[in-house]
Amino acid sequence: MEAPRKQAQAALAFRKRLKPDNAILATVRKIADSAKSYKPQTQSLADLNLPNACKEVVDLSCASVMAEIEKTIINIARSILGGNGFGYSVPSRSSANQLYVQELDRIVLKDKASFRPFANMASVRKTTITTRILQLVHQLCKKQIHVTKRDLFYTDVKLFQEQGQSDSVLDDVSCMLGCTRSSLNVVASEKGVVVGRLVFVEDGDRIDCTKMGVGGKAIPPNIDKVKDMESDALFILLVEKDAAFMRLAEDRFYNRFPCVIITAKGQPDVATRLFLKKMKTDLKLPVLGLVDSDPYGLKILSVYMSGSKNMSYDSSNLTTPDIKWLGVRPSDLNKYKIPEQCRLPMTDQDIKTGKDLLEEDFIKKDPNWHKELEVMVKTKEKAEIQALSSFGFQYLSEVYLPMKLQERDWI
Amino acid sequence: MEAPRKQAQAALAFRKRLKPDNAILATVRKIADSAKSYKPQTQSLADLNLPNACKEVVDLSCASVMAEIEKTIINIARSILGGNGFGYSVPSRSSANQLYVQELDRIVLKDKASFRPFANMASVRKTTITTRILQLVHQLCKKQIHVTKRDLFYTDVKLFQEQGQSDSVLDDVSCMLGCTRSSLNVVASEKGVVVGRLVFVEDGDRIDCTKMGVGGKAIPPNIDKVKDMESDALFILLVEKDAAFMRLAEDRFYNRFPCVIITAKGQPDVATRLFLKKMKTDLKLPVLGLVDSDPYGLKILSVYMSGSKNMSYDSSNLTTPDIKWLGVRPSDLNKYKIPEQCRLPMTDQDIKTGKDLLEEDFIKKDPNWHKELEVMVKTKEKAEIQALSSFGFQYLSEVYLPMKLQERDWI
Repeated sequence: MEAPRKQAQAALAFRKRLKPDNAILATVRKIADSAKSYKPQTQSLADLNLPNACKEVVDLSCASVMAEIEKTIINIARSILGGNGFGYSVPSRSSANQLYVQELDRIVLKDKASFRPFANMASVRKTTITTRILQLVHQLCKKQIHVTKRDLFYTDVKLFQEQGQSDSVLDDVSCMLGCTRSSLNVVASEKGVVVGRLVFVEDGDRIDCTKMGVGGKAIPPNIDKVKDMESDALFILLVEKDAAFMRLAEDRFYNRFPCVIITAKGQPDVATRLFLKKMKTDLKLPVLGLVDSDPYGLKILSVYMSGSKNMSYDSSNLTTPDIKWLGVRPSDLNKYKIPEQCRLPMTDQDIKTGKDLLEEDFIKKDPNWHKELEVMVKTKEKAEIQALSSFGFQYLSEVYLPMKLQERDWI
Repeated sequence: MEAPRKQAQAALAFRKRLKPDNAILATVRKIADSAKSYKPQTQSLADLNLPNACKEVVDLSCASVMAEIEKTIINIARSILGGNGFGYSVPSRSSANQLYVQELDRIVLKDKASFRPFANMASVRKTTITTRILQLVHQLCKKQIHVTKRDLFYTDVKLFQEQGQSDSVLDDVSCMLGCTRSSLNVVASEKGVVVGRLVFVEDGDRIDCTKMGVGGKAIPPNIDKVKDMESDALFILLVEKDAAFMRLAEDRFYNRFPCVIITAKGQPDVATRLFLKKMKTDLKLPVLGLVDSDPYGLKILSVYMSGSKNMSYDSSNLTTPDIKWLGVRPSDLNKYKIPEQCRLPMTDQDIKTGKDLLEEDFIKKDPNWHKELEVMVKTKEKAEIQALSSFGFQYLSEVYLPMKLQERDWI
């Protein structure tokens, strides 16, 4: 029983070092205040004078999307009448056409496009699918309803044959029209939840996230139904996992330290990323990330911050730069004396992923992040957020997070 | 363009047959009224006089769980002092000890138990783990907090070694104490959502599910925080998939036909099953199931109704018998003229699963269900709920479901 006693002592040592909540709050308020003056997107692609011309998409209203579609079709009619045939100019979404822009801290699309002619055996199907998708999206925007990619596929299975084909053309159409996929009223299924000091209006209903019990509010699949965000929070706590979210929600952590707590329950989905981005932009709050101490946790942070390669054309709408890495950081394992048996050895795959990450732009640009990742790859140890439970079930909400806030221990 | 025209005609034909909403509502009200008089669990295990003695668990308060644990430990102290050693009598959860009880329409556990002695090389670890879990659960109940199985595992990784071991002993402890797993304050992560004509109190917060936008309310992981359910709904619509849920939520289907809409987004999780059960018991509403027309959809209905073999000891708390199979039923494919290309051929595995289901008790007991499943296995065709989108994105909410209600077309 030596080990448990040592563990209890370590937990107690940190608990004793905690200042009164008021003192911690004063510390947190400073970072919240500095975030208020933070101006999102001071630079746009146009300002940068990049060697490559780049393409980005914007949020468009239903009326504008319809207008863009009508313009596209009229251009095609003109082209046919002018003897130049029926076809679309489609921006390339291949990785050769992608670019990480350090100034913007996200991945964008270069301006390479290819022509997709109807009168060509190789592209006649894709051209037809493109036309059908344009028609369906026009219909969605006219009716002002939202559907999933799966619904879209099922409206014309004979033509699309498999969902991959309609999905891929849908992304093409986003790029062609220069608008986000959510502007097309095609949404992914939701899985994120939010709780804490946030009030917003969703499709006319006023949602108070301090009154959402312990389960929280499901983040809606369509961000354009969300408006009028208000909050007296000092920060946003972005949590990788469901279990940590539950712990904080049940302990009503946001009442002790005013914050909004959000999770996508693992890999970030588009709806959660849009919701986080909107909170950051509208409320101007600092975002603190709480993820597992493993390469996967870092990858999750990077998707929130820099976007995924798959949807790089939409990066300005989906990404929330300037997320602080609160924990669990590789250096925390020793600092917080996480017991040996709660640390897990990294697999070969983990180590390879970690080493690959060391070369990624979003890690390289921040020496502190780079240093932490080096610790991980060197010690070959990882740990989940749940590892903190070894000090007691409520250690996360009662000691670890308050201590992190008190020490401003994020990078 | 022959096929799309035919499709449009078929859709129109059904739309024309729809009566005014008032007439449909009058039809639905009848089934709602008859459900009001439905008495849940008129029979308990004790009434049945079964050849085997059977074991079931009940919901216990934190105080009662603590009392049960203390009783267990005192008995062990007595046993040691009496010279009979240290050990637990643990009910067997193997499938040989499981029984489907037709009268109750669920799986229960027979009363076989085995002794788990400390002074035995084969069981010393498990006995120690059992003791530790009893201690941790006692602590959770004393603090009145909830944790996940993962949290529990991380409190003593050295002892538990892997999560499978603490999980399995946790189920043992449920059976030993005769209480549900949720009574132990160990919960699964939530993934279900609910929307519609339901008001309830969650951890002191009043939740009005008609004011939850299009995303709905996340179902809380701990059902004991949910109380005071009220509703003016006529039925509960249990939906397999997220996409269909989203369609119905965005169209505010529950305003046209008063209902509560609930989904677990696929395979039912414990929290959603408990929530459905509680709605059914407290509100006495009929439950209509909307699942894909494939063996997997039926399996999902069966888990809601009869429970999973894995947690059969807890079947009375987790199961909602008497769910009506609204759709999409194999016979619907022809009846609603689902286009050929939206039907999918069943794989060999699908067909095997379908044939196995024909032998399952919950199918055999209802000739109508059996007949439908035979149609599926014979035609070797399956279809998702989304297949209805081939008639238009809102066909599900505007035509298919109203028609189903009008015709009382469920079995």
